[in-house]
Amino acid sequence: MHAYRTHTCADLDTSAVGETVRLSGWVHRVRDHGGVLFIDLRDHYGVTQVLCDPDSPVFSEVEAVRSEWCIRIDGVVKARDPSLINPKLPTGEIEVYIRDMEVLGRAQELPLMVFGDQEYPEETRLRYRYLDLRREEMQRNMTLRADVIASIRRRMWDIGFREYQTPIITASSPEGARDFLVPSRLHPGKFYALPQAPQQFKQLLMVSGFDKYFQIAPCFRDEDPRADRSPTDFYQLDMEMSFVSQQEVFDTIQPVLEGLFEEFGQGRTVDKHWPQIPYRDAMRWYGTDKPDLRNPIRMDVVSEHFAGSGFKIFAELLEQPGTEVRAIPAPDGGSRKFCDRMNKFAQEQGLPGMGYIFWRDGESGVEAAGPLAKNIGPERTEAIRQQLGLGKGDAAFFLGGRPKDFEGVASRARDVIGRELGHLDEGRFAFAWIVDFPIYEKDPETGAIDFEHNPFSMPQGGMEALEGDPLEVKGWQYDLTCNGYEVVSGAIRNHRPDLMLKAFEIAGYSEDEVRRRFGGLFTAFHYGAPPHGGCAAGIDRLVMLLADEINIREVIPFPMNQRAEDLMMSAPSEPSVEQLMELGLRVIPKE
Amino acid sequence: MHAYRTHTCADLDTSAVGETVRLSGWVHRVRDHGGVLFIDLRDHYGVTQVLCDPDSPVFSEVEAVRSEWCIRIDGVVKARDPSLINPKLPTGEIEVYIRDMEVLGRAQELPLMVFGDQEYPEETRLRYRYLDLRREEMQRNMTLRADVIASIRRRMWDIGFREYQTPIITASSPEGARDFLVPSRLHPGKFYALPQAPQQFKQLLMVSGFDKYFQIAPCFRDEDPRADRSPTDFYQLDMEMSFVSQQEVFDTIQPVLEGLFEEFGQGRTVDKHWPQIPYRDAMRWYGTDKPDLRNPIRMDVVSEHFAGSGFKIFAELLEQPGTEVRAIPAPDGGSRKFCDRMNKFAQEQGLPGMGYIFWRDGESGVEAAGPLAKNIGPERTEAIRQQLGLGKGDAAFFLGGRPKDFEGVASRARDVIGRELGHLDEGRFAFAWIVDFPIYEKDPETGAIDFEHNPFSMPQGGMEALEGDPLEVKGWQYDLTCNGYEVVSGAIRNHRPDLMLKAFEIAGYSEDEVRRRFGGLFTAFHYGAPPHGGCAAGIDRLVMLLADEINIREVIPFPMNQRAEDLMMSAPSEPSVEQLMELGLRVIPKE
Repeated sequence: MHAYRTHTCADLDTSAVGETVRLSGWVHRVRDHGGVLFIDLRDHYGVTQVLCDPDSPVFSEVEAVRSEWCIRIDGVVKARDPSLINPKLPTGEIEVYIRDMEVLGRAQELPLMVFGDQEYPEETRLRYRYLDLRREEMQRNMTLRADVIASIRRRMWDIGFREYQTPIITASSPEGARDFLVPSRLHPGKFYALPQAPQQFKQLLMVSGFDKYFQIAPCFRDEDPRADRSPTDFYQLDMEMSFVSQQEVFDTIQPVLEGLFEEFGQGRTVDKHWPQIPYRDAMRWYGTDKPDLRNPIRMDVVSEHFAGSGFKIFAELLEQPGTEVRAIPAPDGGSRKFCDRMNKFAQEQGLPGMGYIFWRDGESGVEAAGPLAKNIGPERTEAIRQQLGLGKGDAAFFLGGRPKDFEGVASRARDVIGRELGHLDEGRFAFAWIVDFPIYEKDPETGAIDFEHNPFSMPQGGMEALEGDPLEVKGWQYDLTCNGYEVVSGAIRNHRPDLMLKAFEIAGYSEDEVRRRFGGLFTAFHYGAPPHGGCAAGIDRLVMLLADEINIREVIPFPMNQRAEDLMMSAPSEPSVEQLMELGLRVIPKE
Repeated sequence: MHAYRTHTCADLDTSAVGETVRLSGWVHRVRDHGGVLFIDLRDHYGVTQVLCDPDSPVFSEVEAVRSEWCIRIDGVVKARDPSLINPKLPTGEIEVYIRDMEVLGRAQELPLMVFGDQEYPEETRLRYRYLDLRREEMQRNMTLRADVIASIRRRMWDIGFREYQTPIITASSPEGARDFLVPSRLHPGKFYALPQAPQQFKQLLMVSGFDKYFQIAPCFRDEDPRADRSPTDFYQLDMEMSFVSQQEVFDTIQPVLEGLFEEFGQGRTVDKHWPQIPYRDAMRWYGTDKPDLRNPIRMDVVSEHFAGSGFKIFAELLEQPGTEVRAIPAPDGGSRKFCDRMNKFAQEQGLPGMGYIFWRDGESGVEAAGPLAKNIGPERTEAIRQQLGLGKGDAAFFLGGRPKDFEGVASRARDVIGRELGHLDEGRFAFAWIVDFPIYEKDPETGAIDFEHNPFSMPQGGMEALEGDPLEVKGWQYDLTCNGYEVVSGAIRNHRPDLMLKAFEIAGYSEDEVRRRFGGLFTAFHYGAPPHGGCAAGIDRLVMLLADEINIREVIPFPMNQRAEDLMMSAPSEPSVEQLMELGLRVIPKE
């Protein structure tokens, strides 16, 4: 007989009745029913009820076991009494009468229970992650994660991509975050960097002629922690292809993700049509470049109805350049109670408030209500209603000023309105490509022009465009949004050395600096570079959407806490004097 | 028409004759035959001959292209004259008459040629890796690597393993090399470490109940560079399983590797029988724990024939404790010329020489020759011949002393003898498990006892064994050797806290130190740890064997050079003052 098991804890059914079997697993829970001990024995695959009556030669040993002990039992399979069959359990028709037992691993008193639904502080869960991971939901999330990644890989291979590994201990590859540095022992005083993404290497692979590359790639960004990102390392599906246009990248990746979401969406519908929304429209309609398109609400500019109107705040505001008034339509939101709640929401978000109009039954049909309606009069109010296509029982909210200043709140308000009024179909994955991103942005404080995204994107319109107003230059640069999350980001790359120099010059980089910081790639482009482009998708984000989790730590086996610490493994920790000496480093004492 | 190509450079055959096609690729070479320009246009998939006669509207543009320019051409497919068909090329029956051309990427003068077989210094190849990787052999090695890894993954999934990712920026997980450290910005003065292997995390996954884990895992070891290892990061197939014995790990991984070698071995035979050789026997028979078993030569101890003999050097040597004389039989090596060459080999390896006997035709049958034979006389010589099973035309070489002092040379001599005498079947993969490794070794200088392998292996015989002579304790610890390379290493782990403490105590670690260095795992073992074990296989080594390469840099897309530098990307490099400040570090100036 096998030293530990003849079956897993999910294997046995009535076909095994009468057999002597051996099982190993964890004591999920023990119950004592009139002197008979019932143990739910659990392993990765399932649970089997094993029991021990006082006749068993090992009754006293079994009496001693506690939750989460790891044990091996030998026993005889018996059919359960029909009244005791558990139809929810694959092994629910049988039970195993223990004849022998061996304790494989004892457990001390548990800092968190595996059985049951009790909630524990995250610090406890992370410190005892090996216990936390035994819980059913965590087993499910981790196997989902593994299955999702395997499915992505299979899908990429199926369409002709190969997976190539790029270096991890290497040079800086900036993506807008800080690099993690790795001091070199062989070259004291010098440092390697861990890549924020394999961006330059995947482009070099294209220059090398590999045509279609992908990688489930480890990435490293020294960022301040947030609930939905890992503060240290994470994986992304990174892909790149040669001789393609933007549309071809879309046509390549859409079936991969569509198939993935259908495979693991557990019945939620997956949109087949992925609209392409220019960045400027996305900002105008949704106030964000990652709109949740399950929410049908689309904002609209209504400045003309307020210009010169009796609502002085907006009328005066609109006299300043660069300002506008935008409406958030709220179908079914036409009650004073709801409007007041949203006004309060805006105040909590730091705005003075959010004006509104709502429409109700009046003497002569639909009637506009709210202070704003009074201020601007019935004609303007009616024009607004018609522009927004609203009617009785609906409302609209208004925000004015410079779009950059109110779009954040507008976007969040749109989310809340859509959700509270029940306009979101929660059982749906809604995707959209956001396209035509600007290449550059202006620092609002210094006025300096810098790259909006990573600096490697091809400008639309080439050299001619770069010679005009930089803030007007759009890139072949795109994001994919799903249910309000950015899940993919990518671009057609700038593979022409002359365009690259010009693009960097606009952002204030001299040729020397380009050569110093991106010399590998820049030089490579002088040796027959092909047009190429691609994208990257955050694995954790995809798994979070599929698992319906909002905390990234629920889908990573061993995550850091929010202070970028691993309390279980004691990382980070103080190095030894010898290690520092070898690296030629000294720690600056704290003041 | 697609912006860049209607076909790849491997697609076209006579079925396309008459079509207008678009191809993109690199100019592999250009020839001018009587005013007609012939270009071998190359992409990842193949080569197509495209040509341009003076009638073409773009003749003058095509005249300007040079090797490795990336171009797009439009042209008409024509069948080649039967006398010009190239049967070696899938596209060898057609050629494409260029009607339009676009230069996608110019190339400067090339530091290395892609076409042809010219050899270049490794520094040149690495600095211009993107050109080096365009060469046919490198394309083949990199796609082989990708295919091998994909095959491993598929095989592991097929037998019920899931792939889980373990952290990269984490705590030290020592495997006998130095850690790479990563300074923490959020915790100045503290450092993370990059894992030498996911050892502790995979064990924690077993404690978490995941049952069967694998990962193509990035590993990091700050080691001094060597031809057959990467000085920074590399990948290994890492696997672990619960509730298993050593034999079960073997039975699990053998079919995976056997299948892999059959799939990619290109006709080389793959041994089906993988013997299990105890470590001590391996050292005695082969002088190494990674013997090349394609070589049938097995050494043997022949001390008794030299003790008290007329060969004073060995006779006196054998009076010292711990010494022995070992013979390396050399079938077909029975010529003075060969024996002298091997003697010289031993001298080059730092030994005074290597005594030998060889057997030739004599007056009364087989006759022993060589100075050693004279010194010890015919009876002892004949006894040696019989023990080794040698005859006419054969030889034997002798090494004496402490085994540790001569086994290295003996092992290398065995390799050279086997190879030079043609006893190696080069078209074969020969595997063996080396088992029963000692848990501990004694430092020859300090006499201190330390772990021979990693410290997590289960000692055979449990606590009782640990209470005896530590140097006699064998572990459930194993390597797999293939053709003289260690390809797999693993163990059944010590999952019992009491045994773990005792094992560490013997190696001089206090409980405090165990808790400080391995606290995560040690604590986890107090909460119901299952018996578990596994192994790891170096991916690069596997690919090297399959690609028949002896330099690891031939099977890695972007390797470091032997000084752990990436000259293409300029790594490592000096950090900025701001970066050091943020990390709270100062570089100690060189003296």
